[in-house]
Amino acid sequence: MAVGADFFPEMTAIEGVRIGTTCAGIKKPGRKDLVLFELSEQCRTAGVFTKNAFCAAPVTVAKLHLAEMSPRYLLINTGNANAGTGEQGMTDALACCTGVAQSTGTTLPQILPFSTGVIGEALPVHTIVDAIPAAYDALTTNGWDEAAEGIMTTDTRPKGASVSFDYEGATINVTGISKGSGMICPNMATMLAFVATDADVPQELLQEIISQASEKSFNRITVDGDTSTNDACVLVASGASAAPIVDKSNEGLYQAFSNAVTSVLQTLAHAIVRDGEGATKFVTVTVDGGQTADESLQVAYTIAHSPLIKTALFASDPNWGRILAAVGRAGLSDLDVNQINIYLDDICIVQSGGVAASYTEEQGQTVMNQEEILIRVELNRGSALETVWTTDLSHDYVSINADYRS
Amino acid sequence: MAVGADFFPEMTAIEGVRIGTTCAGIKKPGRKDLVLFELSEQCRTAGVFTKNAFCAAPVTVAKLHLAEMSPRYLLINTGNANAGTGEQGMTDALACCTGVAQSTGTTLPQILPFSTGVIGEALPVHTIVDAIPAAYDALTTNGWDEAAEGIMTTDTRPKGASVSFDYEGATINVTGISKGSGMICPNMATMLAFVATDADVPQELLQEIISQASEKSFNRITVDGDTSTNDACVLVASGASAAPIVDKSNEGLYQAFSNAVTSVLQTLAHAIVRDGEGATKFVTVTVDGGQTADESLQVAYTIAHSPLIKTALFASDPNWGRILAAVGRAGLSDLDVNQINIYLDDICIVQSGGVAASYTEEQGQTVMNQEEILIRVELNRGSALETVWTTDLSHDYVSINADYRS
Repeated sequence: MAVGADFFPEMTAIEGVRIGTTCAGIKKPGRKDLVLFELSEQCRTAGVFTKNAFCAAPVTVAKLHLAEMSPRYLLINTGNANAGTGEQGMTDALACCTGVAQSTGTTLPQILPFSTGVIGEALPVHTIVDAIPAAYDALTTNGWDEAAEGIMTTDTRPKGASVSFDYEGATINVTGISKGSGMICPNMATMLAFVATDADVPQELLQEIISQASEKSFNRITVDGDTSTNDACVLVASGASAAPIVDKSNEGLYQAFSNAVTSVLQTLAHAIVRDGEGATKFVTVTVDGGQTADESLQVAYTIAHSPLIKTALFASDPNWGRILAAVGRAGLSDLDVNQINIYLDDICIVQSGGVAASYTEEQGQTVMNQEEILIRVELNRGSALETVWTTDLSHDYVSINADYRS
Repeated sequence: MAVGADFFPEMTAIEGVRIGTTCAGIKKPGRKDLVLFELSEQCRTAGVFTKNAFCAAPVTVAKLHLAEMSPRYLLINTGNANAGTGEQGMTDALACCTGVAQSTGTTLPQILPFSTGVIGEALPVHTIVDAIPAAYDALTTNGWDEAAEGIMTTDTRPKGASVSFDYEGATINVTGISKGSGMICPNMATMLAFVATDADVPQELLQEIISQASEKSFNRITVDGDTSTNDACVLVASGASAAPIVDKSNEGLYQAFSNAVTSVLQTLAHAIVRDGEGATKFVTVTVDGGQTADESLQVAYTIAHSPLIKTALFASDPNWGRILAAVGRAGLSDLDVNQINIYLDDICIVQSGGVAASYTEEQGQTVMNQEEILIRVELNRGSALETVWTTDLSHDYVSINADYRS
C-alpha cells in the first residue's frame, strides 16, 4: 500500500558515477541487497547524517572517512543496520570497507559504508565481502534503477528522481535514489539517499547546498516520529558537465543548481512519505503566521505526530476538533486562540478559534476522502511559514511494525 | 480490551458529599450520562485543569467559578465535550450551571460544569437541563459506583479508588473516580477525576496537595501523546472527619494525608492507562541517572510515545534496538551512549551502550510476553529518577480512533 501512482522516473546517468547492484543473500536469498557506487577521481562528496546519539557503526565510519578524503566507493547493504552492535559493529563496518579497498585498489578512507535493516544483529561480514566482486563487475552508469531496488527494506516501491537544466548551452543533471518508509522523522530517518550530479561544485559549497536542501526535504517529513540510527544523505558532484563551476558569485547558476538539488531531494522525501508504512494518505501540514520558524514547525509537527489526527485521516473523518486540540497543546506561549484559522485544502474549518460559520461536514468530508490532503493553520502572530509532510496511521502501520522481525 | 483484572473497589462514602447519576439521553438513550455532585457548605474544593490553549468552555467556566467561591455542585455530562464551540459554548456551559442553580437554590458561581465527549458539536443544553431534577432526586452518599459509570466515554471499565487511614483514633477517607482512555498525555488528558475526602483541609493547602499529587499520577501517564481540551481533576474536602485539621505544622498527618491522596490519584491514573484505547500491555518506563528531572522525563516520554516501541510491545517483540534508538534521539546534549544500560524488568538488555553479553532473546521474550512490563533506563549522568506509565499501540487503538465519530 502506498499513496499515489507507482511512478519510477527516467533516471539520467551521471558521468563519473557508476553503480553495481548484486544479491549477497544477507537476509533473503536472491534479493538485491548490496549496492556499490564508484565515483571518479574528480568527484567531490558531501553528506548529512543522523543526529541520533546511538548512531550506527557505518555512520561513524562514513563520517570519519568523509572528513579525511574524497571517497571513491560507497558500499550500501540492506537487511542489517549494523546498529547497536558496539565495538564489533565498528570492526565489521571497517572489514566491509577493507573488502572494497582490496577489490578496487583503493585505500580504506576512500570507502564509505552504509547499512540499513534490523538493529542489533551482527553484520554478516563474510556474506557481504564475498559479494563485493559481483557488485564491482556489475558497475554501470545506468545502474540507478537496480540500485533503487537494492537499498529497499520495508519499502514497497523503489524511489528515484532526476532533473536536468541547461546553463549557457551546457546541461547539468541531478539524479538520486532514496529508501525509507518507517522510523521517519526530522533530523533524518531510516532513510538513505544517494544523489549525484555532473555539476562542478567545490566540496564546501556542496556541503552547504545539501544541508540546506535537506532542511527543506528530508528534515521536513515524518511518518511515525522515530529517528533512526542509520540515516544518511550523500551528494556527489562529478564535475563532468561542460557547465562552469558552481559558485555563489555566479548567482544564476548557483540558484538553478540549488533548486535542482532541492527538487530532487523533495521528490525523494515525498516518495518516502507516500510509501510510509501503511500509508493511505499523503498529508501536507502548513503552518503560517508563527513568530519564528521554530514555532511554526512546533505546531506543524504536533499535528503531524498526533495519533488521533493520523487515525482520523485514515478514517477520512473530518474531525477538525482533533486538529484544534493539537494546535492548542503545541506549547506556544501566550497563544491567542481567537486569532487562529484552520483550513482543509481551501475549506475554512476553524475561523477565529471557533468552527467557521460557513463550514459544513460535507465540505470537510469531500477533502478528507482525497488521497492527498492539505492541513493549513494560520496563527496570525508573525510571518514564519513552515511545511512538513506526513501520512495517516492505519491498521497496516501496526501490522508492519508488529511483525517486522518475525 | 483492557490490561489486568476488571476490579472495581469498595467505595467508602464521604460524609458531606452526595452524588446523583441519571440518563439524560445526550448521545445514546438509556445510558447514564449525567452526574451531579452535591457538596456540603463546609466543603473546600481545589482543582487542576488542562493546559491546552484551546481549553473547552466548561473548563473556562469551572476555573472562573472556582476562583470566585467554594462550589456547592459539580455537574458532569458525557457524550459531548462542549469544546471548540466558541461563544455559544460558554453560553451553553453557563446555561447548564443556571439549571443547577435554579433546581437547588444556589447561585451561578457555586456550580462547576464538566463535559467530556466529542469535540466541536453544540452542547444539547435542554436535554441536560431537563435531566437535572432527576440527577438531584438521585443524590446519595453511596453514589460513587454509578457516577463512575456515568462519566465514561470510550472507557471500557468504570474507574474508582478508595483508601482510609486512622489518625489519633479518627478515620480519614479518600474516595475518587476517573474516566479517560484516549487522548491521554502529560498535563492532563481526556481525563476527568473527582476525588473527595472527609479530611478538614484549608483550600490553599488542598490546592497544593492536588497539584503535587497530579504531578506524580495524572501528569505521568500517556497513551497517545495527545492532551485534551477538557481535562480536570477536582479534590473536595468536606471536613466531616473527627480528625484534626490538616496542616503542614502537623507533619505526620500532613504526610499521611498527602500519601493517601497521591495513592488514590495514582490508582485512578493507572486505571486509565490499563483501559487505554486498545491497550494489551501496562508499561512502566523508569529513567534513572538523569542530570535533571526534566532530562529523565524527556527520555521516558520519548520511549513512551514511540510508535515503533509501542507496536513492538503489542507484538510482544523484545526489539530492544527500538528502545536504544529512542534513547539516542531523545535530544540529550552530550549523551555518552557508552554509559547507558537498559533493562526489561530485571533482564539487562543493553550494557554500556551495546547489547549485554548475558542477554538472550529468550529472556527478552519471557518479559515481553507478560501483560505488565517495566522498561528501565540508566543514564548514569546524574541522580534524577522519573517514572511514566503507558500502553502498547494495537490494531484496536486504530479501530477505536478511526471509528469514534461514526
